[in-house]
Amino acid sequence: MKLDVFLTPGELTPADIADRIVVVIDVLRATSTIVEALGAGAKAIYPVASIEEALRLANTFGREEVLLCGERKCLPIEGFDLGNSPREFTSARVKGKTLVMSTTNGTNVISLTAGAGQVFIAALLNLRAIVAELARREADPIILCSGRENRFALEDAACAGVIAGQLMKKRAGDWKLNDDALAAIALADSFGTGVELFEKTAAGELIKEAGLGEDLAFCAQMNRHDILPVLRDRNITLLQASPDASP
Amino acid sequence: MKLDVFLTPGELTPADIADRIVVVIDVLRATSTIVEALGAGAKAIYPVASIEEALRLANTFGREEVLLCGERKCLPIEGFDLGNSPREFTSARVKGKTLVMSTTNGTNVISLTAGAGQVFIAALLNLRAIVAELARREADPIILCSGRENRFALEDAACAGVIAGQLMKKRAGDWKLNDDALAAIALADSFGTGVELFEKTAAGELIKEAGLGEDLAFCAQMNRHDILPVLRDRNITLLQASPDASP
Repeated sequence: MKLDVFLTPGELTPADIADRIVVVIDVLRATSTIVEALGAGAKAIYPVASIEEALRLANTFGREEVLLCGERKCLPIEGFDLGNSPREFTSARVKGKTLVMSTTNGTNVISLTAGAGQVFIAALLNLRAIVAELARREADPIILCSGRENRFALEDAACAGVIAGQLMKKRAGDWKLNDDALAAIALADSFGTGVELFEKTAAGELIKEAGLGEDLAFCAQMNRHDILPVLRDRNITLLQASPDASP
Repeated sequence: MKLDVFLTPGELTPADIADRIVVVIDVLRATSTIVEALGAGAKAIYPVASIEEALRLANTFGREEVLLCGERKCLPIEGFDLGNSPREFTSARVKGKTLVMSTTNGTNVISLTAGAGQVFIAALLNLRAIVAELARREADPIILCSGRENRFALEDAACAGVIAGQLMKKRAGDWKLNDDALAAIALADSFGTGVELFEKTAAGELIKEAGLGEDLAFCAQMNRHDILPVLRDRNITLLQASPDASP
């Protein structure tokens, strides 16, 4: 059994992910926000790379039919309905809605997964459900860290390490880890995945500077939602969680 | 004071390195081999990206004037004089000679440093001299890990972490570390930089499979040479080590 982590998206080639199960992580904050939005009842989320693409897609659906969300430099985009702060994605705002989302890192990285067998969206908020699903499957997973502007992000590595470590416990066997996976597990052991870690990272610092420091504690919550967001036909919806993913 | 590590070469942009001191690491094996060759008395080493470029440069100098060295898939290149095993680079073979070297990772990464203020070549073999030089300088260094085919390599990260950790002890102050530097220091603490680590890594495994397993113990030697290889005018020669770099 193989367990591959990619600490930065630049390491990935299309051949790596062909027909593999890929788990995408952008803890601060895109995948945390996606998990929160779906947990709060959003119907579907379309991740797109650019603001232009978001507007085009919104016009295709009908501007009133969707919520536009995302960020540039951590802050909401002008004319959009919501930013990229998971705290904004309450039931009152998003229940039953289709979201079109563009962020600096996470939504771009999701677009790199074309050709994968299946793509799950992971954050600390739904970590247990992700681990349970990976443990249930026979396949060799890839955990893809979004990082920050094509760079390594310590919080994503630590989250990947927790997923990898818990998966190896839950599905015991002769796992073969790549260098990134060995590193991620060690980094999760060294730093944990709490606010103390986030405050040391470049992403955490930028979010605090943008006045959104409360997002850090929000994104650090473990297992707030037992849900499995899955990317299909370019949009993210919920897959029924497997029974052993329940609390 | 800023201390930036780049765990993979894909994270680097030309703007990052402009006028900075850059330390390039490819522990298994290109930079270990470069340090060993210069320690054994080689006059200069020209790192080049391709076999074709190596042959062209050798013909420019005169084929008999240089030693061609390098590897593809860990093994010596047909028609070349030496491979990429540091054990081959004895005084008897290289003293006074000019080397033209092409390896899969390290020599490519060295070419990414164009625009840097100064480029040093580091391995465990000359770690103390590198740390002493960085401690002596006012500048904010970058430590660039070569990795393996644009991917993360754990042995390079651990070596970067040891350099970063020792530098911060030697030149105490208010260091600002990027995420990669925080990770590298933790990884050096977790894994060390010995043969036990190398045997866990993808690069170490490939070298063993190629029948060159003895290279691992060779490359794990700390401070075998108190020398500072520096890249200038596209070739690597020795810079006089600073006095506090002596044993």
